[in-house]
Amino acid sequence: MPPPETPLTPARILEATEDVLRRYGPAKATVVDVARALGVSHGSVYRHFRSKTALREAVTARWLDQEHDSLSRIARAEGPAADRLEDWLLTLFAAKRRKAGVDPELFATYLALATENSEIAARHVETMIGQLTTIVESGIASGEFTMRDARATGRALWDATAQFHDPVFAPRWSDPDMDPAFAAVCELLLDGLRAR
Amino acid sequence: MPPPETPLTPARILEATEDVLRRYGPAKATVVDVARALGVSHGSVYRHFRSKTALREAVTARWLDQEHDSLSRIARAEGPAADRLEDWLLTLFAAKRRKAGVDPELFATYLALATENSEIAARHVETMIGQLTTIVESGIASGEFTMRDARATGRALWDATAQFHDPVFAPRWSDPDMDPAFAAVCELLLDGLRAR
Repeated sequence: MPPPETPLTPARILEATEDVLRRYGPAKATVVDVARALGVSHGSVYRHFRSKTALREAVTARWLDQEHDSLSRIARAEGPAADRLEDWLLTLFAAKRRKAGVDPELFATYLALATENSEIAARHVETMIGQLTTIVESGIASGEFTMRDARATGRALWDATAQFHDPVFAPRWSDPDMDPAFAAVCELLLDGLRAR
Repeated sequence: MPPPETPLTPARILEATEDVLRRYGPAKATVVDVARALGVSHGSVYRHFRSKTALREAVTARWLDQEHDSLSRIARAEGPAADRLEDWLLTLFAAKRRKAGVDPELFATYLALATENSEIAARHVETMIGQLTTIVESGIASGEFTMRDARATGRALWDATAQFHDPVFAPRWSDPDMDPAFAAVCELLLDGLRAR
């Protein structure tokens, strides 16, 4: 427990909520548990998150957004679009696998929360497809990729790689076949994009 | 119930087993239920299927194989490989959707059986990838597709279209977005195969 003079920030509350979810699961975890973990009153938590629902939504959004920053940097980097696309997909797959593998129970908890907050999950997917669209647009602009509807292509790339990022497939991600399967799908998709 | 002189064939037993599974679910259905539905002794059923496990495996294999024939005809037909590939994927997706939509409970039952008999499910996937490989090979032979490892490509096509045939995605198949999503993925994959 941090010293009491540490200011109670939303970030600290969200971290404590993650710990509480990890310990009790989404069905049992309460705002009182979070407050207790922080050594504050539950009123102090409510000053930052007006309800248990708001707190759950924030923690789900944070979980889903954890990949956004590194992926966004890749999407906006310099260099060949094909390399960036492959790097982006690899980074996403590695992050998902790590999350599902290191802490499968917390992963299941978050999956349940994301299903519950389907609007937040939908917004996450839109952000991901937006980043893929950015890469496709830059590849078209540089002449590396053939001309095509960048947005529809971003979505098609997301859908065609579902097996490597959709949590319903998590039980298969430890399969040794997954790496060559991922490489083959990437290669086929890049061949579809490349101007020849 | 058919007249008693109708010979008891494996096909008739499997049909009765499907009815029984539909009614009682995989946990409760027994060989005695199947025999009763056929108006025969359970000994007569055991003469064709030596155990409940053998009967469940046979009914799972039959269910998984139902698409094989029409798909196999498409894979081996004449004409441009790109058209056949699109036709094959569309036919598969339509068949899966039909199965999941018409009779969701039986679909869940079969999904449970297929998970239980993972070797039979794996064999089914091998057959499907084999048919995709046949289409890719013929496209390469005719010069329509660029030269590539046909087998690895067949597998990549299977993996990249998982969202449109893997039963874990069944809850999303009624989504109106699925048709344009399928079309966009198909187009991207075909662009990857085509010799330009």
